[in-house]
Amino acid sequence: MIISKVADLRQELKSKDPGAKVGLVPTMGYLHRGHLSLIERARAENDIVVLSIFVNPTQFAPNEDFDSYPRDLEKDCKLAYQSGANYIFAPSDKEMYGANYSTYVNVDGNISRGLCGKSRPNHFRGVTTIVSKLFNIVNPSNAYFGMKDAQQLSIINRMVKDLNYNINIVPCPIVRDENGLALSSRNAYLTDEAKKQALILSRSLKEAKTLYLEGENNAQELKRYIRGKINSMSLAKIDYVEIVDQETLENIDYINRPSIIALAVYFGKSRLLDNIVLEDK
Amino acid sequence: MIISKVADLRQELKSKDPGAKVGLVPTMGYLHRGHLSLIERARAENDIVVLSIFVNPTQFAPNEDFDSYPRDLEKDCKLAYQSGANYIFAPSDKEMYGANYSTYVNVDGNISRGLCGKSRPNHFRGVTTIVSKLFNIVNPSNAYFGMKDAQQLSIINRMVKDLNYNINIVPCPIVRDENGLALSSRNAYLTDEAKKQALILSRSLKEAKTLYLEGENNAQELKRYIRGKINSMSLAKIDYVEIVDQETLENIDYINRPSIIALAVYFGKSRLLDNIVLEDK
Repeated sequence: MIISKVADLRQELKSKDPGAKVGLVPTMGYLHRGHLSLIERARAENDIVVLSIFVNPTQFAPNEDFDSYPRDLEKDCKLAYQSGANYIFAPSDKEMYGANYSTYVNVDGNISRGLCGKSRPNHFRGVTTIVSKLFNIVNPSNAYFGMKDAQQLSIINRMVKDLNYNINIVPCPIVRDENGLALSSRNAYLTDEAKKQALILSRSLKEAKTLYLEGENNAQELKRYIRGKINSMSLAKIDYVEIVDQETLENIDYINRPSIIALAVYFGKSRLLDNIVLEDK
Repeated sequence: MIISKVADLRQELKSKDPGAKVGLVPTMGYLHRGHLSLIERARAENDIVVLSIFVNPTQFAPNEDFDSYPRDLEKDCKLAYQSGANYIFAPSDKEMYGANYSTYVNVDGNISRGLCGKSRPNHFRGVTTIVSKLFNIVNPSNAYFGMKDAQQLSIINRMVKDLNYNINIVPCPIVRDENGLALSSRNAYLTDEAKKQALILSRSLKEAKTLYLEGENNAQELKRYIRGKINSMSLAKIDYVEIVDQETLENIDYINRPSIIALAVYFGKSRLLDNIVLEDK
């Protein structure tokens, strides 16, 4: 069932057994297999699965791709039902941000400042605000987020802890295409050539992890290695390549705790994210 | 039952009938009859009444009275039980703001900028943050707030609407002592002489309302009248006297819609608030 009004979704959920477990999968739509893996996981772990599809204006800067962000609600619904969603919540901008809208949830500090927060200053404020709203509307037991957006995941974990949301955040592994490219709705912007060159992202992350497992703990060395690989591609423009503590996202020089190598790289107008976790050896 | 841990309060509430109505009364303690009227109202309208007592550090500026704010948990508990509270949630600072705490809820815009927001720049950010946390912990059907803190009430209404909290906010009338002084925990700071002089606040508001009802719709005139009255008191130092739209809190010049005359006045180190509603004639 597609629902566009907050009140209608509340009414539907209220009519269910109050003990029913509700799983929420927040998305911006244009679903790919990564999203579907979240829905399937939610299906397996809950009685009711709510998928939200909302291209959230407050997480885009004026110069970003809000208007051109790909949308296909009809196809999304078909895929979502096949994967086990019960409700698709697809509200309008006006439904989510009415007249005189004024309230924002913000996670301050280092966790928001580095990585994507540096080039997208108000992005995460928009993310935490819309996610709070969805949490308050759906009141889920579990909420599902992809690990491709590593910083988003850390920030949401921080918010849930700080604001005492009684919600279990379930991180879901990155889903990749057959060549290793991390799936993203923004891959739709890539030319064939860019798509080919973008494979360097996952490949260089994987190689750096191998170097780490073979004994290289110096973060500068690993970053230099990855940057060199990416810069060898004519269409690539690095936004950042960083190695950070998995929980706090603080930069680290010597890798001696669970860490992430995270990167953002432009290929034309597409800004692609990828990352790889370095567990303790 | 006094509870100091979030997890314990959750456990208690979870053990109740899921259909039970929970009423929340958030306070900073040192209860007076104003607070008790909130508890009594909550008792009448809910199955379970949770009173929170927490002197919230994030709503005090460094130069304010956080350390000296009056506290008396033992007496508070006695009064609260007598008025019908079932649970008293009295957490430590550390329980509410743990290590690396980073998340704040903020209501931007005119509603927060004027009145108390002018002289207490981060005050309401602290209020909305702690109230969000309490909402997420208690998940109440109804939450009770006194109308003495008129701006706080408007901001919380805005937050509830914006963040889609499914909570009914119940505004409760100002409770006054036998001479008309609005009850406040901060009245404990007043000398006898200040307490006598402070009666000018409610008296001048009441007189201004009479002038309004007799035909004076010019906000400047009414404010000038009140300021003159207050300035005749030797110990009074006006922070503000304003007439604002009841919902948006925007300043108005000509009174033609539901409005509030709101004021904040120092008597010694006590900053006292009072207000009166001007309904449509």
